[in-house]
Amino acid sequence: MPRGEREARMAWSRISEPEDARALKLVREHGAEEALAAVLDGSAEGAARYLPRVETLDIEQDLRVVSRLRARVLVPGDDEWPDGVDDLEVPPHCLWVRGPEDLRGACERSAAVVGARSATPYGESTAGEIAAGLCERRFTVVSGAAFGIDGAAHRGALAVDGLTVAVLAGGVERPYPDAHRGLLERIVATGAVVSEVPPGCAPTRWRFLKRNRLIAAMTRGTVVVEAGLRSGSRSTAREATKLARVVAAVPGPVTSMVSAGCHELIRRGEAELVTDADEVAELLGYLGADLAPVKRGEVRPEDDLGEVEKVVWAALPVRSATGVASLAVHTALAEREVLGCLGRLQLKGLAAHDGEGWRRPPRRPA
Amino acid sequence: MPRGEREARMAWSRISEPEDARALKLVREHGAEEALAAVLDGSAEGAARYLPRVETLDIEQDLRVVSRLRARVLVPGDDEWPDGVDDLEVPPHCLWVRGPEDLRGACERSAAVVGARSATPYGESTAGEIAAGLCERRFTVVSGAAFGIDGAAHRGALAVDGLTVAVLAGGVERPYPDAHRGLLERIVATGAVVSEVPPGCAPTRWRFLKRNRLIAAMTRGTVVVEAGLRSGSRSTAREATKLARVVAAVPGPVTSMVSAGCHELIRRGEAELVTDADEVAELLGYLGADLAPVKRGEVRPEDDLGEVEKVVWAALPVRSATGVASLAVHTALAEREVLGCLGRLQLKGLAAHDGEGWRRPPRRPA
Repeated sequence: MPRGEREARMAWSRISEPEDARALKLVREHGAEEALAAVLDGSAEGAARYLPRVETLDIEQDLRVVSRLRARVLVPGDDEWPDGVDDLEVPPHCLWVRGPEDLRGACERSAAVVGARSATPYGESTAGEIAAGLCERRFTVVSGAAFGIDGAAHRGALAVDGLTVAVLAGGVERPYPDAHRGLLERIVATGAVVSEVPPGCAPTRWRFLKRNRLIAAMTRGTVVVEAGLRSGSRSTAREATKLARVVAAVPGPVTSMVSAGCHELIRRGEAELVTDADEVAELLGYLGADLAPVKRGEVRPEDDLGEVEKVVWAALPVRSATGVASLAVHTALAEREVLGCLGRLQLKGLAAHDGEGWRRPPRRPA
Repeated sequence: MPRGEREARMAWSRISEPEDARALKLVREHGAEEALAAVLDGSAEGAARYLPRVETLDIEQDLRVVSRLRARVLVPGDDEWPDGVDDLEVPPHCLWVRGPEDLRGACERSAAVVGARSATPYGESTAGEIAAGLCERRFTVVSGAAFGIDGAAHRGALAVDGLTVAVLAGGVERPYPDAHRGLLERIVATGAVVSEVPPGCAPTRWRFLKRNRLIAAMTRGTVVVEAGLRSGSRSTAREATKLARVVAAVPGPVTSMVSAGCHELIRRGEAELVTDADEVAELLGYLGADLAPVKRGEVRPEDDLGEVEKVVWAALPVRSATGVASLAVHTALAEREVLGCLGRLQLKGLAAHDGEGWRRPPRRPA
């Protein structure tokens, strides 16, 4: 039988499903070990729920698996416990973790990059770019290792030797989807693969839903890259909002069904529109340090002109020069006004005078 | 010489450029006719500015052109004067109009659909769809007849026999761009072509800028479909904001430079994100009457289940049935709880029982 708080929590993660409020209540009231004993002797409230699985408990086997996988089991209070998780209404009993990275450290400056499994090439390349850009800005990219956006986000992070964390709906020893076996091995080798369900557990629909809340809680914010109107990523976004995390969404063509969820999030004010890693970093980062450069078009010398100077400048021909009288008619200004403007424009290098009259100076090479 | 207020205003639109605050001040203080006389005798403040053009005035010729074009000249106070224009700081002296449509009536329920000249096929088709959809909802589509988004918006409106108004930067007799000659003829035949500058005037850079403010003022709101970071459409959007009109922008791929301006407008909170005509109509329309249908994914029967029922439903196999004991282990619920849920699910048609055990009922064809 499990001994001590850690082993008892491992057992609780086996006999209850994620986000079981009753199990949490028992553990909180009695401690994991005593609560487990109370289930075994039938004295715990609602113990019947857990008895069918208690029979399958084999803590020795679990410890062997953990050791064989070179995994570890984190419980609340551990140095490595990612504290964001405690913001959840029903936090996990423990976290099963593989990989060299300190999980708490990795999550301190982190972003979830998530989205549709049935992503478009546009979505996947955008997810990869954003993930890579975030890693270059020293963010950890957290995702769910699914097909589509999730996979592209992990790959984008790995491509720049960035730190990435995969949170799975099934056991950490079980690559899911199977086609991501190689991807998950690379994440295990460099970052962390995490689950709140024990090894051997299949990724069921329910666990996928509950996994999403973990991703939201572990990160400073969530970026949804592509999502249909009914998408798991939108549930991640909702969780993130509930937890007062930042939520951002990437726009796409209005004709794309997998951008429709992103556009709805933005329209409802549930997500900020972001177009690149700079903008995500600004939203997620520490105030000031991560401000995105403001997007401007090319700055032009004529931007700072007064209204009347602008009129004259706009009327100045690019090629053949023209006279002041003609400019006056063209601009509906007095010749005196035109001349004054031309003088000021000339000082700024925006008007040139030759024998024939006035024109714009030739563009200098950039 | 011009006689009466209307002819005097026609003259003012010849001797001054759009948005000339000094000309407006003179006209407002003295009336158009007296102000013109004061320019002629040199007693008006700043009269020098207008003298070069006064010499070119030929009101008889203007009246002949108006008659030949079967055009008309509107001045403030006319029944057909679009009153939104008076919200401008420097409204036009008059409007030169061609086409059968009552301009004021057309503008009462109207949207500007504008955007980049160098639009993408995506932008043009979206502009066309939105314009057509707005017309089907009895909105008038106002635009600038330029290449790209503007042209696509007019064409989208015409394709559904909708009402569309083109506001030009040059004279109303002058098709610009020349390739839109046919398009403008169709608008003249069914809607309205409008300018604040007189026939014969070329569409200069300055007049393009000032034309944008007219489009913003004449409509209830402006939709920017594609726009670069430095785009005339963004100036239209800025004018619309200044005039407390609605501003909306259509998102697109983050990789598209002509969506970058739209994304910036949305990010800065200067525009609402819209993806179709329904959403534009809701923003522009009269409260209540034009609410867009809320975008949802497919509604599924399992949406309304309680938390515990959802767990059981999620665990129910689609094909081969399974027993209550197995479901209890799978869900980490007591067998009694599982049975209770199964009963409720069965009532809702979400669980079926056969000899072997429990499963989901076969999907009914939609």
